[in-house]
Amino acid sequence: MEDDPSIFTMIIEGRIPSHKIYEDGEVIAFLDINPFSYGHTLVVPKEPARTLDKLSEESAEALGRVLPKISKAILEATGAKEFNVLQNNGPNAYQSVFHVHFHIIPKFEDGSGLSWPFKTKPLNNEDAASLAKSITHLIQ
Amino acid sequence: MEDDPSIFTMIIEGRIPSHKIYEDGEVIAFLDINPFSYGHTLVVPKEPARTLDKLSEESAEALGRVLPKISKAILEATGAKEFNVLQNNGPNAYQSVFHVHFHIIPKFEDGSGLSWPFKTKPLNNEDAASLAKSITHLIQ
Repeated sequence: MEDDPSIFTMIIEGRIPSHKIYEDGEVIAFLDINPFSYGHTLVVPKEPARTLDKLSEESAEALGRVLPKISKAILEATGAKEFNVLQNNGPNAYQSVFHVHFHIIPKFEDGSGLSWPFKTKPLNNEDAASLAKSITHLIQ
Repeated sequence: MEDDPSIFTMIIEGRIPSHKIYEDGEVIAFLDINPFSYGHTLVVPKEPARTLDKLSEESAEALGRVLPKISKAILEATGAKEFNVLQNNGPNAYQSVFHVHFHIIPKFEDGSGLSWPFKTKPLNNEDAASLAKSITHLIQ
């Protein structure tokens, strides 16, 4: 397969660096390198399913469980009051990495966040390291 | 509170009808009455949290667990091959009912699905009853 292992599997295996904010036995979360807004995070099951309909119930359950606490920590660290969660399945549905992932996208008063057309800007490594640390410390 | 109980709590309590496709102790799922596309479904925790960061881990876990099987049944019933999952938190982040809900939105080759600006059309009751029945039967 052209994308086996996916870039996310390489991140999970530590073969590619990431600004990690959370990890447990089933799930990893890290900052998106092309964020829609400050704090844009990807929450990824370690199981390498391509789309959500093919993910095991165990992984989906573990992923669901961590969404509230990760979202809460992102809001606290960034100061955002609102956010969107987006999960895409299929190239025409905006999926670009074929390994299930949930976007958590803070929405700010300046309008940055999930909007159309998708507006991203590359992550600044130094800012990202500091932000990832703040979020990590806030996850309980 | 202006929206307590929410319209979703009234659906959960059976005080408002819905085209239900799934229900267990923690979660209910039914067709959106203003769908983006054929099969657009809402998956809702029974716990009346306003936003995902305020939802309990137990409800979030239960909700995560059912997303794969509900998505799979929707794809099978509608013939869609792709889909988006969207969950909005806050009025500026497109939330309109203040009770956590995940949208499952099939994406079709004609472009219908999650797109911008949001395009919806009211659900036809007769079609919806038949579709809800098909999806329900496909959920394992």
